[in-house]
Amino acid sequence: MTEQPIAERLDDVETAVQKGRKKIDWARQHMSIVEHLREQFEAEKPLEGETIAMAMHVEATTAVLTEALAAAGAEVAITGCNPLSTHDDVSAALNATDNITSYAKRGVDDEAYYDAMHAVVDHDPTITIDDGADLVFLIHEEYPELIDSIVGGCEETTTGVHRLRAMDDDGALDYPMFAVNDTPMKRLFDNVHGTGEASLTAIELTTNLAIAGKTVVVGGYGQCGKGVAKKAAGLNADVVVTEIDPRQALEAHMEGFEVLPMKEAANKGDIFVTTTGNRDVITEEDFEVMGDGVLLANAGHFDVEINLEQLEEMAEEVIEARDGVTGYVLPDGRQLNVLADGRLVNLAAPKAEGHPVEVMDQSFGIQAVCAREMALNGAEYDAGVHDVPDRLDREVAEIKLDAEGIEIDELSDEQREYMDSWQHGT
Amino acid sequence: MTEQPIAERLDDVETAVQKGRKKIDWARQHMSIVEHLREQFEAEKPLEGETIAMAMHVEATTAVLTEALAAAGAEVAITGCNPLSTHDDVSAALNATDNITSYAKRGVDDEAYYDAMHAVVDHDPTITIDDGADLVFLIHEEYPELIDSIVGGCEETTTGVHRLRAMDDDGALDYPMFAVNDTPMKRLFDNVHGTGEASLTAIELTTNLAIAGKTVVVGGYGQCGKGVAKKAAGLNADVVVTEIDPRQALEAHMEGFEVLPMKEAANKGDIFVTTTGNRDVITEEDFEVMGDGVLLANAGHFDVEINLEQLEEMAEEVIEARDGVTGYVLPDGRQLNVLADGRLVNLAAPKAEGHPVEVMDQSFGIQAVCAREMALNGAEYDAGVHDVPDRLDREVAEIKLDAEGIEIDELSDEQREYMDSWQHGT
Amino acid sequence: MTEQPIAERLDDVETAVQKGRKKIDWARQHMSIVEHLREQFEAEKPLEGETIAMAMHVEATTAVLTEALAAAGAEVAITGCNPLSTHDDVSAALNATDNITSYAKRGVDDEAYYDAMHAVVDHDPTITIDDGADLVFLIHEEYPELIDSIVGGCEETTTGVHRLRAMDDDGALDYPMFAVNDTPMKRLFDNVHGTGEASLTAIELTTNLAIAGKTVVVGGYGQCGKGVAKKAAGLNADVVVTEIDPRQALEAHMEGFEVLPMKEAANKGDIFVTTTGNRDVITEEDFEVMGDGVLLANAGHFDVEINLEQLEEMAEEVIEARDGVTGYVLPDGRQLNVLADGRLVNLAAPKAEGHPVEVMDQSFGIQAVCAREMALNGAEYDAGVHDVPDRLDREVAEIKLDAEGIEIDELSDEQREYMDSWQHGT
Amino acid sequence: MTEQPIAERLDDVETAVQKGRKKIDWARQHMSIVEHLREQFEAEKPLEGETIAMAMHVEATTAVLTEALAAAGAEVAITGCNPLSTHDDVSAALNATDNITSYAKRGVDDEAYYDAMHAVVDHDPTITIDDGADLVFLIHEEYPELIDSIVGGCEETTTGVHRLRAMDDDGALDYPMFAVNDTPMKRLFDNVHGTGEASLTAIELTTNLAIAGKTVVVGGYGQCGKGVAKKAAGLNADVVVTEIDPRQALEAHMEGFEVLPMKEAANKGDIFVTTTGNRDVITEEDFEVMGDGVLLANAGHFDVEINLEQLEEMAEEVIEARDGVTGYVLPDGRQLNVLADGRLVNLAAPKAEGHPVEVMDQSFGIQAVCAREMALNGAEYDAGVHDVPDRLDREVAEIKLDAEGIEIDELSDEQREYMDSWQHGT
Repeated sequence: MTEQPIAERLDDVETAVQKGRKKIDWARQHMSIVEHLREQFEAEKPLEGETIAMAMHVEATTAVLTEALAAAGAEVAITGCNPLSTHDDVSAALNATDNITSYAKRGVDDEAYYDAMHAVVDHDPTITIDDGADLVFLIHEEYPELIDSIVGGCEETTTGVHRLRAMDDDGALDYPMFAVNDTPMKRLFDNVHGTGEASLTAIELTTNLAIAGKTVVVGGYGQCGKGVAKKAAGLNADVVVTEIDPRQALEAHMEGFEVLPMKEAANKGDIFVTTTGNRDVITEEDFEVMGDGVLLANAGHFDVEINLEQLEEMAEEVIEARDGVTGYVLPDGRQLNVLADGRLVNLAAPKAEGHPVEVMDQSFGIQAVCAREMALNGAEYDAGVHDVPDRLDREVAEIKLDAEGIEIDELSDEQREYMDSWQHGT
Repeated sequence: MTEQPIAERLDDVETAVQKGRKKIDWARQHMSIVEHLREQFEAEKPLEGETIAMAMHVEATTAVLTEALAAAGAEVAITGCNPLSTHDDVSAALNATDNITSYAKRGVDDEAYYDAMHAVVDHDPTITIDDGADLVFLIHEEYPELIDSIVGGCEETTTGVHRLRAMDDDGALDYPMFAVNDTPMKRLFDNVHGTGEASLTAIELTTNLAIAGKTVVVGGYGQCGKGVAKKAAGLNADVVVTEIDPRQALEAHMEGFEVLPMKEAANKGDIFVTTTGNRDVITEEDFEVMGDGVLLANAGHFDVEINLEQLEEMAEEVIEARDGVTGYVLPDGRQLNVLADGRLVNLAAPKAEGHPVEVMDQSFGIQAVCAREMALNGAEYDAGVHDVPDRLDREVAEIKLDAEGIEIDELSDEQREYMDSWQHGT
Repeated sequence: MTEQPIAERLDDVETAVQKGRKKIDWARQHMSIVEHLREQFEAEKPLEGETIAMAMHVEATTAVLTEALAAAGAEVAITGCNPLSTHDDVSAALNATDNITSYAKRGVDDEAYYDAMHAVVDHDPTITIDDGADLVFLIHEEYPELIDSIVGGCEETTTGVHRLRAMDDDGALDYPMFAVNDTPMKRLFDNVHGTGEASLTAIELTTNLAIAGKTVVVGGYGQCGKGVAKKAAGLNADVVVTEIDPRQALEAHMEGFEVLPMKEAANKGDIFVTTTGNRDVITEEDFEVMGDGVLLANAGHFDVEINLEQLEEMAEEVIEARDGVTGYVLPDGRQLNVLADGRLVNLAAPKAEGHPVEVMDQSFGIQAVCAREMALNGAEYDAGVHDVPDRLDREVAEIKLDAEGIEIDELSDEQREYMDSWQHGT
Repeated sequence: MTEQPIAERLDDVETAVQKGRKKIDWARQHMSIVEHLREQFEAEKPLEGETIAMAMHVEATTAVLTEALAAAGAEVAITGCNPLSTHDDVSAALNATDNITSYAKRGVDDEAYYDAMHAVVDHDPTITIDDGADLVFLIHEEYPELIDSIVGGCEETTTGVHRLRAMDDDGALDYPMFAVNDTPMKRLFDNVHGTGEASLTAIELTTNLAIAGKTVVVGGYGQCGKGVAKKAAGLNADVVVTEIDPRQALEAHMEGFEVLPMKEAANKGDIFVTTTGNRDVITEEDFEVMGDGVLLANAGHFDVEINLEQLEEMAEEVIEARDGVTGYVLPDGRQLNVLADGRLVNLAAPKAEGHPVEVMDQSFGIQAVCAREMALNGAEYDAGVHDVPDRLDREVAEIKLDAEGIEIDELSDEQREYMDSWQHGT
């Protein structure tokens, strides 16, 4: 069974719409890239005739992207990509906008969550925009008949791109997908600055504890891990990094971080943040040696990085220690505190608002030009995972610099010639 | 007219008490210093027979201090020192504790606020604990008859100590007060790390905007300003400092911060944070040159640092841009966004929870030993402002290191002798 | 005419050899990667029968690499890749080692410099190792007959790889070359940490001026520029970045650095460091607005980044302001100070010793395994520029972690399976 | 026996004078504070009739101060305060200047060192300027008859002030001394930035090793230790701090540094820097657990912080591992490398040039105004140690800001009134 749009499922739609609209207005003020593109799109209507299916975290910045896509001429159907990240008011405001239907609702059970995803796919999309590859996966599994009319899609996250590449390697991905996550713009800004800053803020506000003076253990030293590690150090934490890749481990070591296996780090840390995209980063053997009162938070896409099944089994009592904090009291009296049920802490924590607006602006600017590219030139891309063409990524960077009033140098002809030539000696 | 305790003024006291108790329990888990002292106090009852009047931000950490004082044998009456910083549930939970009466209620008008302060003074305190010197001032103005029986008091903040020293210079301070704010422990940790970290977190969460890539203008380079400036830089902001003292200006310059007069900084900044303890740090001439969408936040004690009267006069429209953010729309279309009505952003912003728990633990550990000192040795102190005796400050540092499991070196006899002698040559 | 080995051109060879040997011993102690490989090479002799031509900065760390290659069974002929970077004593000590002939001599004129390069090529190399692509270029221009017997080569620098790619694009590169510069290990460690740290140290020691409190303008935000910028900020400079690429400009902006066109930065800076690999980064129009006493240093491969011809033309007087510092006194009295004649400051400054030993160890570890790869599997590589195979880069990282005693986590089977699969939902 | 001026003890005085003059000119260009004062002094001759005895590190910046004092009308006699820190050429150039006699010579033995100090005192000074209190001590011990005609003196260092306070406590200090070291200007800038930056630079250049990726153990977290620790972290070291004071230990902990007893740190560190002013910071039990190849450097005034007697006794062989590095080879094969014989590494290492010029400018600006103060108002100061009057310290800060072109805000009348009053409520 498919789900109703959000408007049918709220008591006071009007108030929700109003509150959602205010949130969206605030975001729009600080999203200069997507705003710039929306103005262009409104004039040029590059998505005329397209139907876009989206499964993303439905909050204010996503709404600004969604409205830019609708302004470009598309019909848009959207739902959440995580039951806890939806803002119902934003969802309602989006749903009240022309050419947009939103099915996202916070806190629904698994069945309703997937029903909403089916409802979105029932719009017969020609373009899909995913945050975790759920739509692509669902369409390939249950709606293969739609694939012929889909020109392509975009995937936002590391995890989603990872899943798509696995599909592609299996020969099981039947339309072209842009790996938005892998662009320089997305990886550096969204992951390093977005996840980095917002995860720490979410931990601070959810717990009212300080980062300064703490030992922060960062699981994984990819782009997200780097962001968390460097910003935690910038807030005066002593940072320990765990890794499974020797080069990233060495990179962390050369930056001045202590690198340890998790089992040893478990004993030293006060706060643990997982950022690997993998499962079982923190497990039973680690819980066993952690100190009383430690905080466990996840900044990776799925809630599998901290093994909560094992922790629950070990615990004598499980309490709500604070809004958004579950205390697992072990037989020896130690209380391990898990934030936001081990889900993405910067999205799922009660006071969290997701990535900072400007960081999403950069990321969603790329989504917008990628959707445009699929509509205009989708036929040029084979089925499979594609890197975002460099010119699109640069276009977004230039819009942003312009909006910030930042001027940069230009290559002179002599410099260009010098860079192109190879006949200059010492 | 004096005010009723909080319990008389809430609809559902029991739920409030329960919620407040949970908050206090969380704080207590992370306040190892005050907890250590509470155990001592419970055994030794050093405050037996004392009545303590408190006017402080009534939230979870203050409650842990308050309960430690009650555990020491004192009767305690408490109210807020800022109408917007009280957590009603914590106030209710405190009030439900033996030997504690709490009058603090959030969002009361000026009259009710001062009525509550009178109610506290009506308990005939022998010791006062202030955050802004309001109790001391009230007692000197309106309750001079109480002064004889007061053994002394403690003041938490820069601003309060400033007021007390001014009183003292006028010969108008009639009982001894500890300048808790001026201890090394308090100034370095509470101001640098507490205000520094919590202000930035409050700004991030209230606005959902990033610090990274922003130009953050910090008004004042005292301990609070240093904390804000360094941590903002640690989160990848470009930081500009304004100062009125040449040495502090030079210190900021040597740390690598750009130092500008506010009028020039106004034109460069994206986010402004005032930390001076003075009024009119940001005024009309600054508003005139600020960019559209800037954020204005205050981390000083009083709400006089950003001149909101002038801003309101300049504005064509004043809107609630977001919960905790007031947008002042100027005739030329620029919108300047003021956080938390220009009050202490880390306390008064809607999602803010005040200073981090551990930082308050250090600060309140000093308060606790100072109250004990006044009870035991108050007679040794003349009327006037007193520095906290060094041995008390060190006692607290030692308790903290011990609780953190940090060992340090000890001077050998040879080293001690070397430090004491002066007859060693090159 | 070709050149004599260094031993024929020194007055007191024995003393030089002794001094050089001490320098090499010091380096070897801190080059755990190359040492580990040398032990392997000595046992396995993978370079038996090869003749290696090298044109590199001849100092202690290069010597440790050179000796490891000789230990592997190769005949090695080496000369400098920059007339000012050679340490004659190290050159002499190398030349005194079995199977190594060194032609490098410091301070020779252009003719002698190129004569030495010819002398090296006259050894009929089968493998070439370059730092700036000079050997490859010379062989293609003047010794095409050697190309058939050359199995391949390695290039150390950004600049050299750039030249080789340009050759390759023109179809003019006739044997396989490893782009050592482009490996993760090389780019991150050598460029960020090596150039970053050593350039600043060289500037400090050459001038006896502080970085703290200075405005440091970094020309270019590639890996070298990032290193210089971050470490200068870490030493309390206020850092300004100039760029020609919008994404790198944006990256610098998001890290908190001010981004300006050079012409505007010229007016703000106290110290300028160019790191672009391009020419004319600082030119006449910039000199015109610089302050009195500024320092100009280059950390890019060639001495073309600061346009010294223009500066010399503008100057009324040119003085040796200090050993390694040339003062250009302009008609208006301003003195602009150029370090190390605009050559690589961390190599060419009088007191400079080049990159830190450990950083060179990482870089030269890759050189060593790449030379081994060419000897063992060179036939598998077509003519042209090749990325270093990932397995070689990882091999070096693992050797380093091992030598540092750093343990990291290993993927469990479940984790490996999770990473490989794509059928896991939310 | 007293010593001859430097000119009598050099082979080629003229060349030395020329080289020294160039060094002094370079320093002067970057010492805007002392230069500003020199111009004032030249016009006003505030030191007319005074004779100044100085025992300081005789290098270029000291020379600029010395010449400013001579320009003010004083006769100046100067010698070194450390046998290894003198630059003979600067000493010769100073000696060739009107009204200045220099006795400083590098590398003299203890007897010649003290003979030179006697020679300086034989000028019958009216003002003394010390770096380590040696002159004051000598005069009190051996020239008590001079004390009556001495108006006062200045002491530059922590160590010297420490010795003077001990004398003062014993009632043994018979003329007024300014504790220049204790001014905000001196402690923050000279210690934090001067020692911090220059020690690390000296270590890097003396060893050609990197700071990045190293574990740096900083002995002591006073102003010097803070500088070393923060800048080492800024260069990507993992920093460990040792302390004997609980509050400074806690401060280091809250900044994010690991705090350990030296014995435990000894096992973790790659580089050790002592900054305590005390003896035996690193001793036998620490040497026993250190890793092979560690670096040991001292940034405190005297060479007593690393116990070299014990290390020598433990060693099987002592080698010159590199210019300025002594390798102590232990029976188990580990080699511990001591830099600059355990003397102040940023002054005594072979390539070191002492504190950065601008940092000395700040410090010596205070010396200059303090000497002026003693000459003009010395009679107002009792015998004993005196803090530098705040107005002098501020005067120097203002000169510096002015020279840097930095404008700051001024208090308005309303703000001044606000700061002075205490009758403003919430």
